[in-house]
Amino acid sequence: MNPSRPGTFIVLEGPDRSGKSTQAALLVKALREAGLPVVHTREPGGTRFAEAIRRVVLDPAHEVVPLAELLLYEASRAQHTDEVLRPALARGTAVVCERYTLATLAYQGAGRGLPFPLIRRLNRIATGGLNPDLTVVLDVPDREFHRRSLGTADRLERESRRFRDRVREGYRRFAQSEPRTALVDATRSVPEVHAAIWERVERLLPRAKAAA
Amino acid sequence: MNPSRPGTFIVLEGPDRSGKSTQAALLVKALREAGLPVVHTREPGGTRFAEAIRRVVLDPAHEVVPLAELLLYEASRAQHTDEVLRPALARGTAVVCERYTLATLAYQGAGRGLPFPLIRRLNRIATGGLNPDLTVVLDVPDREFHRRSLGTADRLERESRRFRDRVREGYRRFAQSEPRTALVDATRSVPEVHAAIWERVERLLPRAKAAA
Repeated sequence: MNPSRPGTFIVLEGPDRSGKSTQAALLVKALREAGLPVVHTREPGGTRFAEAIRRVVLDPAHEVVPLAELLLYEASRAQHTDEVLRPALARGTAVVCERYTLATLAYQGAGRGLPFPLIRRLNRIATGGLNPDLTVVLDVPDREFHRRSLGTADRLERESRRFRDRVREGYRRFAQSEPRTALVDATRSVPEVHAAIWERVERLLPRAKAAA
Repeated sequence: MNPSRPGTFIVLEGPDRSGKSTQAALLVKALREAGLPVVHTREPGGTRFAEAIRRVVLDPAHEVVPLAELLLYEASRAQHTDEVLRPALARGTAVVCERYTLATLAYQGAGRGLPFPLIRRLNRIATGGLNPDLTVVLDVPDREFHRRSLGTADRLERESRRFRDRVREGYRRFAQSEPRTALVDATRSVPEVHAAIWERVERLLPRAKAAA
């Protein structure tokens, strides 16, 4: 174990409305009940600076080109990693973070079509190589739009659906290929999904406890 | 000549208050009088999006780590390059831009101490390899602070002076080592400095005219 990083770093990933915040809150509660100090944070927010960036990215008045969007998220990540993640992990605190580097591969890579090697390079630069001990991908079908047929949806709806499909497929693919990453079926009940996450997190805990 | 880029791309660089905006305005006027269409722009602003980023970077409420600051400037650069520089150059317009990639080597590299290879890599990513035809570095001594002795200045003033000294030295060094880059003594009168810049720009003009 790296003595400069005794804390356990867990990331929850998945498309919008896959239940990340709900599951993160339950996981934080369970970790605290197991006696561990925990920091609960999220990307791209989590710091004052990052929240300001988030507002710029999400402001529909700006038409942001994909490369600029990628670099903004990486800027936000660099700040969040330095200001929140590293200090918490260094003092032995567990960290539960909603979204991290895998989200960038899924959204900017699989979704927007930016090259994966470029994204991986920028992920490494922004994080200084700080990787999670476990990334859990919450997998949900795109129910809302799958109920409508592609034929009757308008162009923007179809594009938006195709984008979300690419993101979801990216997440599923990376959940198989990336190290220390698990795919969890998030169509089940909240307690069932929590149990599936907890089963994987628990395996890391002896390590976290030994460091505490 | 690359047919996808018939326009001439000129960058004015230099520390704060070295006269970039004044000289850029005079250069734009002279290029127009020479019959060339010109776009006058600047970094890190120049687009609505980039101006929003600029406000985030310059807001003293945020303590931005150097790496995040670097990535923000590169995000802004990616947007500005795609939205302003490339379209103007592609339609044969000359571009006069205040600050570009050299500023990042001077401020974030020589000034803040980030590694030059990292900055060069990110410059290449953000610009897609779009390099100026000419970069003019306006060289001025740091008069305001050099009149005070280092001994009587307080710690913040000394730090701020040392930062500006590093930036200026970086600019001078890169003006020697970078391709298509010229150092111009900007302590002279405004018309004299303009004449020195114009002498260098004029050499590029037959090429620009031939493309028009």
